[in-house]
Amino acid sequence: MDAPTERTRVKRLNKRAKYDTETVHGILDAMPICNVGYVFNGAPYVTPTLQWREGDHLYWHGSSASRMLEACEETQVCVTVSIIDGFVMARSAFNHSCNYRSVMVFGTAKKVTDAAEKEARLKAFTDGQWPGRWDMLRPMTAKELKATTVLSLSLDEASAKVRTGAPGDDEEDYALPIWAGVIPVRTEVLPPIDDPRLITGLKPPAHITGYKIG
Amino acid sequence: MDAPTERTRVKRLNKRAKYDTETVHGILDAMPICNVGYVFNGAPYVTPTLQWREGDHLYWHGSSASRMLEACEETQVCVTVSIIDGFVMARSAFNHSCNYRSVMVFGTAKKVTDAAEKEARLKAFTDGQWPGRWDMLRPMTAKELKATTVLSLSLDEASAKVRTGAPGDDEEDYALPIWAGVIPVRTEVLPPIDDPRLITGLKPPAHITGYKIG
Repeated sequence: MDAPTERTRVKRLNKRAKYDTETVHGILDAMPICNVGYVFNGAPYVTPTLQWREGDHLYWHGSSASRMLEACEETQVCVTVSIIDGFVMARSAFNHSCNYRSVMVFGTAKKVTDAAEKEARLKAFTDGQWPGRWDMLRPMTAKELKATTVLSLSLDEASAKVRTGAPGDDEEDYALPIWAGVIPVRTEVLPPIDDPRLITGLKPPAHITGYKIG
Repeated sequence: MDAPTERTRVKRLNKRAKYDTETVHGILDAMPICNVGYVFNGAPYVTPTLQWREGDHLYWHGSSASRMLEACEETQVCVTVSIIDGFVMARSAFNHSCNYRSVMVFGTAKKVTDAAEKEARLKAFTDGQWPGRWDMLRPMTAKELKATTVLSLSLDEASAKVRTGAPGDDEEDYALPIWAGVIPVRTEVLPPIDDPRLITGLKPPAHITGYKIG
């Protein structure tokens, strides 16, 4: 992943580009929400879903009946994860920007075909987000496993872009009496809401009350 | 926009599908962050950026040197906006889900070529997010306007998907002593951070302190 390909080399503002594994993994691990891009009948589609990483691959899943998963299998995809950290408010419209961390991964999506491997990937996803949850759940049935498709994508062609910090204004604009700075944003996790049919007195486990993303 | 085309008709779980203008506009207006999908040399690309809506079109912008904007112009694109509202924690892995509001828009991206129109669109974007900011800023120069590309996309082919509420577990699973419910999430806007070179004593205006998204 360290050497950019023609496709992952960030063309503009390349001071923001990062190709190192640690940066790419850190962003993927911080944010399960991703957008999967694929081509169907010659036209682009972008579908939001959840991703997870194990080693040098990322994975996403869904119903085996999903048009998106079917269209992605064995073809070129682009999976993008982005975390917005703030709106960068400059003294001119032109110098406004965003602080963000994003990753783009290009490659050919592969279906996880072996049932045991597929179940292991789904367990890793669940426990990666909510440690220990898999074993607390009613076990997955063979029928449910069959009805679930898991796709994998190598991180060989991955690149990150990161912007942090204050606005970069034109030198002469700093003297202007215009408020400039950053409006920070983050994904806030609120207290869990019990299911209306929850067994009375059952408390949410630590993987629920301690959940964080972003 | 009310009658779905072959492409916008949501194939699966169509109880979640919404084609009405009010729902689509509401989601686009709540969340400026979007993902633009396009095809370049036959492969899909997904680029995160900001969108805004005016009437029955959405717009996005960037540097005139942007590879993404160039690749989108006059070709088929898919712009997706998604807001995640919660993680839906069921009693089985299979019934886990997300609460979300999302919009997909398909169509051909058009460049806004007239300079005055382009500036009007950028003003609408800025003031739409931060009311009154445009007129407080150092005015945009002709050179900056030329260096900025604005693309538009008709909302004729737009569809929304929305999931809300509690998990939908298998009837026999409700008796199990497993915590189930929703972990709500939202985009939190934190207090603004002054630019280190801000003129002493300058306070952030209401469009900064009152900013909200999601």
